[in-house]
Amino acid sequence: MPALYAVIMAGGRGERFWPLSTRKLPKPFIPLLGSSSLLQDTIARIQPIVPLERVLISIGAEHFEIARQQLPQIPAENFIVEPVGRDTAACLGFCALHIEQRDSEGIMLALPADHFVSDEPAYISTLRKGLENLEGSTGVVFGVLPTRAETGYGYILAEKPAINADAWPVVRFVEKPDASTARQYLASGNYFWNSGMFLWSNRTLLGLFQKHMPETYTGLCKLRPLLGNSSSAAELIRIFSALPRMSIDFGIMEKASGLRLVPVQFVWDDIGNWASLERALLSDAHGNIAQGPHVALESRGCIIYAKDGTVATFGVSDLVIVQAYGKVLVCSKDKAADLKRLVTALGPQEA
Amino acid sequence: MPALYAVIMAGGRGERFWPLSTRKLPKPFIPLLGSSSLLQDTIARIQPIVPLERVLISIGAEHFEIARQQLPQIPAENFIVEPVGRDTAACLGFCALHIEQRDSEGIMLALPADHFVSDEPAYISTLRKGLENLEGSTGVVFGVLPTRAETGYGYILAEKPAINADAWPVVRFVEKPDASTARQYLASGNYFWNSGMFLWSNRTLLGLFQKHMPETYTGLCKLRPLLGNSSSAAELIRIFSALPRMSIDFGIMEKASGLRLVPVQFVWDDIGNWASLERALLSDAHGNIAQGPHVALESRGCIIYAKDGTVATFGVSDLVIVQAYGKVLVCSKDKAADLKRLVTALGPQEA
Repeated sequence: MPALYAVIMAGGRGERFWPLSTRKLPKPFIPLLGSSSLLQDTIARIQPIVPLERVLISIGAEHFEIARQQLPQIPAENFIVEPVGRDTAACLGFCALHIEQRDSEGIMLALPADHFVSDEPAYISTLRKGLENLEGSTGVVFGVLPTRAETGYGYILAEKPAINADAWPVVRFVEKPDASTARQYLASGNYFWNSGMFLWSNRTLLGLFQKHMPETYTGLCKLRPLLGNSSSAAELIRIFSALPRMSIDFGIMEKASGLRLVPVQFVWDDIGNWASLERALLSDAHGNIAQGPHVALESRGCIIYAKDGTVATFGVSDLVIVQAYGKVLVCSKDKAADLKRLVTALGPQEA
Repeated sequence: MPALYAVIMAGGRGERFWPLSTRKLPKPFIPLLGSSSLLQDTIARIQPIVPLERVLISIGAEHFEIARQQLPQIPAENFIVEPVGRDTAACLGFCALHIEQRDSEGIMLALPADHFVSDEPAYISTLRKGLENLEGSTGVVFGVLPTRAETGYGYILAEKPAINADAWPVVRFVEKPDASTARQYLASGNYFWNSGMFLWSNRTLLGLFQKHMPETYTGLCKLRPLLGNSSSAAELIRIFSALPRMSIDFGIMEKASGLRLVPVQFVWDDIGNWASLERALLSDAHGNIAQGPHVALESRGCIIYAKDGTVATFGVSDLVIVQAYGKVLVCSKDKAADLKRLVTALGPQEA
């Protein structure tokens, strides 16, 4: 079997986890769920099937230092630095060039760096099922059977197979639904959340670029001879910057045929905002979730993150309270998904 | 007319304004309403009628340093340091000895160091009315006509005078009422809040101790020869520590006859807890009160105190939010009066 490479996508902005995350320290790099960062958790989780020398980290130039600090065990050449952010299609196309250079037969497992996974053995077992079902497909996507009528995720419609229930033929990718559509998807049993985790033969992926994103593919072909050649950095930046800004979902997955979906066997969450922590962390008897020193008196359903000092609550409910870097956020839980608006109101000085 | 001495009582604990106030830095020493501390405000306010050399500051030994720092203009010998806290009766008796030593004919104006006063000219004018009506009375108390059925204050029943409405004969002091009694007091027009501001001939006050608190008076007589004699510090501590722990209200004012009440002509508040700030500071268009850097988005009726960094609120209402010394309080406004319970729950490390 060809060698498996993991591409960990550690891009992203800091707005939804202000004040703990910032532009300089976005979500993948913060210890949202414990003492290690989400990126560190992702690397640790993948270890049983991908050795460190085949783990590639895709990051923006401004996060290179912090990524090296957090991941000293990853070889320096495995940090794939994007000169500018051009969304996931350009990111994965660029990574595909790096894998191709090392191993023309390689398989790429693309993983977001900032998701929650409940059960590591089940996670590895799900990924193995993906690998077992890759051959003969255009690619494998990992889908999550919905547990609520979520309107914040993209969905994938798949067809329940007659025999091998490990891999469902993908019918199509669909955009984020409205609430009533989301309820239909939840009831159907054939619609899955798009986890953003994908598996491809690296060569097949480059072929998908050629077919569905020819402009990006042309750019990638120009980038190919420049890799690892520091004298051509300016040229590389120029070409990369000209790549279309597009997600892999929109650019390729929605158009490709022959994809398979493997349903995941673990609890998954993209931890999209502070309120998501309720799905990833255990609460106390009064429904409060807390990280860091805190005292909660007559308080219910609060999410508390105290980075540097004690947070004390008294007689409050359903709040998100975050203290970090001398800043304090107190937000109604039902506004957490909308935090960008507050960050905008705060202005560039504070954000 | 005899010389007027002001005694500023700057004792107190830190519990009700946690985390901004602490045992080391209790309420009089914190800049609750602006850039100066409540103690500094009190001294500044009294200037038109009491020169600095006749302003005495009664403080606990542990607050001597901070008091000197905050009040460099007050002569060192005017800080009356209590070896231990023994409530306001012992405090004022001890101060009366100091005034007696300087001026046997002196008048004492006793003022808490931690109250809010809206209108300084009206404040001075009220005090002058007290002075004008002191002669022929046992003492003058300053009463506040209630504007709400407050159950957190002691009240004074006074008799509306036929002619001079500046000074009402005191009928009696009454303890903090229950809610329905407080409503009756509010409706009556004869019940006043006890502001804790008093005026006495110093000699009369010592006579009141002799009559109503003989044990304290005996202790004061033993303390008298020890004042200003540093070699007798141990003896002073021993005697002071043995004084009964009692308030001036309970020990003397509730028992004394011949008291007069002068109604105050300004808005007064004892700023008993964080929620009181609403009565002392202006709010924004959404009813939010804030000190320090903050952004409030879709937030109403909140009291925000940001000592060191930005506090941002989003979609919340009727909260007290305080950030100070790396600690954060988020408290329902209606629990603010009960904050001691939270401080107790926090334990001695945090409080």
